[in-house]
Amino acid sequence: MTPFVSVDNMVKLVRHVGVETFLTELCAVLEEDFARWPSFDKSPRHAVHVPGGVIELMPIADDALYSFKYVNGHPPNMKRGLQTVAAFGVLSDVEIGYPLLFSEMTILTALRTAAMSAVAAKHLAPSTARSMALIGNGAQSEFQAMAFRGVLGVKKLRLYDIDPAATKKALANLQQAGFDIETFSTAEEAVLGADIITTATADKKNATILSGNMVGPGQYVNGVGGDCPGKTELHVDVLKRGDIYVEYEPQTRIEGDVQQLPKDYPVTELWRVIGGEIDVSRDAGKTRIFDSVGFAIADFSALRYVHQKVLDEDLFDALSLIPDPADPRDLYGMIQAGGA
Amino acid sequence: MTPFVSVDNMVKLVRHVGVETFLTELCAVLEEDFARWPSFDKSPRHAVHVPGGVIELMPIADDALYSFKYVNGHPPNMKRGLQTVAAFGVLSDVEIGYPLLFSEMTILTALRTAAMSAVAAKHLAPSTARSMALIGNGAQSEFQAMAFRGVLGVKKLRLYDIDPAATKKALANLQQAGFDIETFSTAEEAVLGADIITTATADKKNATILSGNMVGPGQYVNGVGGDCPGKTELHVDVLKRGDIYVEYEPQTRIEGDVQQLPKDYPVTELWRVIGGEIDVSRDAGKTRIFDSVGFAIADFSALRYVHQKVLDEDLFDALSLIPDPADPRDLYGMIQAGGA
Repeated sequence: MTPFVSVDNMVKLVRHVGVETFLTELCAVLEEDFARWPSFDKSPRHAVHVPGGVIELMPIADDALYSFKYVNGHPPNMKRGLQTVAAFGVLSDVEIGYPLLFSEMTILTALRTAAMSAVAAKHLAPSTARSMALIGNGAQSEFQAMAFRGVLGVKKLRLYDIDPAATKKALANLQQAGFDIETFSTAEEAVLGADIITTATADKKNATILSGNMVGPGQYVNGVGGDCPGKTELHVDVLKRGDIYVEYEPQTRIEGDVQQLPKDYPVTELWRVIGGEIDVSRDAGKTRIFDSVGFAIADFSALRYVHQKVLDEDLFDALSLIPDPADPRDLYGMIQAGGA
Repeated sequence: MTPFVSVDNMVKLVRHVGVETFLTELCAVLEEDFARWPSFDKSPRHAVHVPGGVIELMPIADDALYSFKYVNGHPPNMKRGLQTVAAFGVLSDVEIGYPLLFSEMTILTALRTAAMSAVAAKHLAPSTARSMALIGNGAQSEFQAMAFRGVLGVKKLRLYDIDPAATKKALANLQQAGFDIETFSTAEEAVLGADIITTATADKKNATILSGNMVGPGQYVNGVGGDCPGKTELHVDVLKRGDIYVEYEPQTRIEGDVQQLPKDYPVTELWRVIGGEIDVSRDAGKTRIFDSVGFAIADFSALRYVHQKVLDEDLFDALSLIPDPADPRDLYGMIQAGGA
């Protein structure tokens, strides 16, 4: 039987652990996996672009485990009352090729994306950073706030969304969580003086959420929403204001905000910093930009973290996913016998 | 809720429909989809090669539906009492990116592989063919026999496997199904005079199951087991004895028996024959070879066939796979409220 983590069980797990603790623990697993980057068999994700959206498969493996995530990105879904980003995935045992876990990953993707942002900021943003502008107050925004508080101690938030209803929702959730919050009616005001600027917007187009004059020296930019060909958030002048860090260069060149730059424009893969190969002085007053698109290793880490947790807490259902006939070569006989 | 077809429900469905009828109906769906080949967004499968096996993802989409299959290939699994090939997959709605069906596909892959072979033979093998040599008597063999009887009227079988226990198992199953069967202790004897030669062996190596002198004029070769880089069944002389047909050339050049031939050696994609673009005279006494590796469209067809069937027959479980919060942007609030 294959353990299955339903939406209900994922909610139970996150509530049991606590959102902020979950994110902080997940950050530790992410750091562990990014530090051993060369041990993974990596490839850019497989994307099928359709009118109104994209459907992606994100596989990755090391010597022992394999994982993949199925994830869509359909901005028009919001108006249909559906998730813009819905996901599920599998963790497998490389030796026998069988699944170890099948899991909902809509919630888990929201968590791992925020955890990944916090891990990057932990290594790249000024150590004194305590305030964050959150541009885009959709499903990702609260998780970003919780991860940055858990990992960096960010307690002040500056919210802006093109849709005031989204800001209202995020404000209510984050006030309850104890943040010190201001809301703004323009992105320009929201980013003013913030130590960290997080952009997490969803439109599938080349948008300019941040223009060059909005980012000052020493501000850290965490760009989350530009993650598809033709879907960007940062004006090219923002990208030229500081050093750019990415998850996996071959994928980010296609999907990230850096798709607007020449192919040879310098970027640094984050694992080199996390693994200690490159020493970044966080307090040198430099502007740094994390051009995040989401990479398969983060899903791998999230699945491996959740796998242990749900087994420990007995928060899964058992699915009959792979047949187990008495003679492995006798699938036909198993069907005739009516048994599995 | 997402409909899930467990192993138990797939067994029930196949028994309810009947193996031979299932295969014959599936052949019709395969022909329909292969005939509209240009309407699919195609790519070679994504493979991660690991010691002892391979794990693959096989995505495909048309304007309305998307599917992918996860499938492993681990020859050492047989000795562990596990499936050499285990699989599961998803059918999705392209417009919203959500899954419509999650299904076991170990049984379904065995069925669709056999149906694909029968569809190819229906268009390529002599119309008078009634006898088939089955080289390799593992999990795939009985399904091949049933599909070739259902679609082509093949009633005489000539069995051979390197492991006599496999032949004994297939013999028992296929005698019960009413075939006229002979068993042989060498592949050379088994193929002698057979109208159709099917090879379905599993070793992950370059093997010579058929050598050049074993295939005579007018014999049709259905090569099923050579489907990985370094995993072939047919000696290069067999390939040179006749016209070669493949599912999807970019994938078969890497994975099929034709990996042994120069990259420009002529092959014909099967859809051109099924779609009527190329007229093949089946009874011209020519040797033809179907170098089958398995392509994503066959899984797409199988999932779309099963989707309708399980909804009609109520043979599925409902999984809570995608969250449905009251406000689609309020995943965080949904977790806090403890509900999905």
